Amino acid sequence: MVSNPQAPTTDESSNRTVTVPLGDRSYPIRITSACICGQEGRGADVGILTDAAADVTHWVLIVDEAVSNRWATPIGKALDSIGDTVRVNVIEVPSGETSKSVESIGGIWNQMLNLGTDRRSVVVAVGGGVVGDLAGFAAATFARGVRFVQVPTTLLAMVDSSVGGKTGINLPGAKNMVGAFWQPEAVWIDTDVLATLPDRTYRSGLGEVVKYGVIDDAKFFDWLVDNADGLVRRDADALRYAIAASCESKARVVGADERETSGRRAILNYGHTFAHAIEATTGYGTWLHGEAVAIGMQMAARLAIRIGMCDADLLKRQSDLLAACQLPTTMDTADIDAMLTVMQRDKKVAHGKLRFILPSRIGHVDLVSDIDRNDVIASIEQTIGKA
Amino acid sequence: MVSNPQAPTTDESSNRTVTVPLGDRSYPIRITSACICGQEGRGADVGILTDAAADVTHWVLIVDEAVSNRWATPIGKALDSIGDTVRVNVIEVPSGETSKSVESIGGIWNQMLNLGTDRRSVVVAVGGGVVGDLAGFAAATFARGVRFVQVPTTLLAMVDSSVGGKTGINLPGAKNMVGAFWQPEAVWIDTDVLATLPDRTYRSGLGEVVKYGVIDDAKFFDWLVDNADGLVRRDADALRYAIAASCESKARVVGADERETSGRRAILNYGHTFAHAIEATTGYGTWLHGEAVAIGMQMAARLAIRIGMCDADLLKRQSDLLAACQLPTTMDTADIDAMLTVMQRDKKVAHGKLRFILPSRIGHVDLVSDIDRNDVIASIEQTIGKA
Repeated sequence: MVSNPQAPTTDESSNRTVTVPLGDRSYPIRITSACICGQEGRGADVGILTDAAADVTHWVLIVDEAVSNRWATPIGKALDSIGDTVRVNVIEVPSGETSKSVESIGGIWNQMLNLGTDRRSVVVAVGGGVVGDLAGFAAATFARGVRFVQVPTTLLAMVDSSVGGKTGINLPGAKNMVGAFWQPEAVWIDTDVLATLPDRTYRSGLGEVVKYGVIDDAKFFDWLVDNADGLVRRDADALRYAIAASCESKARVVGADERETSGRRAILNYGHTFAHAIEATTGYGTWLHGEAVAIGMQMAARLAIRIGMCDADLLKRQSDLLAACQLPTTMDTADIDAMLTVMQRDKKVAHGKLRFILPSRIGHVDLVSDIDRNDVIASIEQTIGKA
Repeated sequence: MVSNPQAPTTDESSNRTVTVPLGDRSYPIRITSACICGQEGRGADVGILTDAAADVTHWVLIVDEAVSNRWATPIGKALDSIGDTVRVNVIEVPSGETSKSVESIGGIWNQMLNLGTDRRSVVVAVGGGVVGDLAGFAAATFARGVRFVQVPTTLLAMVDSSVGGKTGINLPGAKNMVGAFWQPEAVWIDTDVLATLPDRTYRSGLGEVVKYGVIDDAKFFDWLVDNADGLVRRDADALRYAIAASCESKARVVGADERETSGRRAILNYGHTFAHAIEATTGYGTWLHGEAVAIGMQMAARLAIRIGMCDADLLKRQSDLLAACQLPTTMDTADIDAMLTVMQRDKKVAHGKLRFILPSRIGHVDLVSDIDRNDVIASIEQTIGKA
């Protein structure tokens, strides 16, 4: 899978590839270990990048400043060593959600212009979801679209935002309100970059991983039950498997509904209507996104039980797996009125009616409309202060 | 063609429709007279707008402030009168190229947010090329894409920028450097709005009209020779025919090369490499765009003659037609060194080689690479100070 014959730094059989099926915009997700940092003194193996795009004269790395030295520098060095005909530039972006702003994208556009970016350039996003969304939007719009590659450096970005082509920035009070669908040429996921993530940030990503088991893949759910310990330990083999299975689910959904027009893509929002309300009412950052998703999935499962859509066993199995992943399953208090207000505003709530993605069994969810407000309140209440 | 049965304000046989063939993104260009201002005290006939998009709850008119009262107000009133379920908002934009800025698009995004714009909204661009490009880019990116309709109010925008899906803004020193390909649901061209255009602005649009005859349609060129007087007088019948023929040429080219990947779309740039250099070196606004295109086509025709691609008769016929349209065919002086520098930077000049779209006969052009710099200089010199 890694094509650079000079530096076969990993056992190739251990790498995994998932394809996002989008016709002539299909692209591979390559999942490796030890390819960015290199092994035995070798540099990064950037074969995945050079395979992803032909006729490249210029690489523009847009990088979270927190990971720049550690992960972007070796990639940039390796690309630079390809030869004199290729230029490499790095644009650093401050860490955090505030970088997804109009001011920030304006600055990046100007830097891309000054760096001579054109249609033979490729943007490489190195960072978490913030940098991926921002760099992707820059690539979607500069010169009406240049190619880009995602190199996610958080587990959350690996299994969620780096796959599927959603790019964008925030407006004041409205996340992801401006953006474009713009598919990358490839996604390169190297599990080694997870080594430096703080525990809580890392585990937060497992919330989205568990989600794929519940919404789409019962076998993967069972695998997760058996391998939660390995994932918590960040075992590389377990990680490559879990990331590949998660990306396969996401790729399947995105392939069926690239631009969110058929409604299929909405299943990815399982737990998210609650999670967004939790994040918004507790202040962003109090709960990390994947933690809020974990709690939100518990609320959604309770809601599904209340309306007779599934039985209590589903909740217990989901709850046990989230706990095994050391994720929260409850919160101490909630401002339920404020949460309801947020949920009414949610993009997924059409025309003021409350709609939720709810499970009927492990591995299957449906969009359910016209949910009674009291059932929502009860599902939240049941999730507060419970072990 | 106009579907509103209450207000058949025009002889329907006089309306024209051109289709831009883009598969499931195909759309109609409707060419009418007297539908916006209405006739006999009736309001605007907005059937073309309401036919263009289903399930609309919100119209956002993005409007050049110079034409707001005259043309946007009647459209807004007519849309408002459809019923209580539909909201209409107007966002006014200052006239002129400076509105195509990062600051400006940021302001529009925030206004769209505050107006509750969502995927059931439709953006309507009412103005010239600046407003069309800006509003189109806002539509392309707000909520990752909402529908929009172009209502061009200058002849230049009618036959050029409103058709083909190019949207965007400028960066400091770089026009149209940020943008997206985003096709409208429809283009509505009503010739009555041309009545208020200053003579020079109006005639500037004829430069692009003549271009279509030279690059793509010899019969239309002959028609233009016979009807230049009517066009200069702004005769409505002549205008609808000329606009329809121009849009048909543009639609054919765009249909063959939507995203400027095959190279076919480059033929639309006949005269434009010279024109951009004229505009940039004389200061934008010294020559209007269509005037610069007229002079640029003369330079290009002379270049084609120099390299043996066509004979002198083509230049004479083109020159006579431009003159009949009261367009300039020469300029007094030129900073040729500065023009060459600009041409080297032009997006259409790949890898430092000078490339031009040049005619072999009326109705046909080709992309010619590796043009000798001295031939370019001579072609400019021959066009300076000549009658």
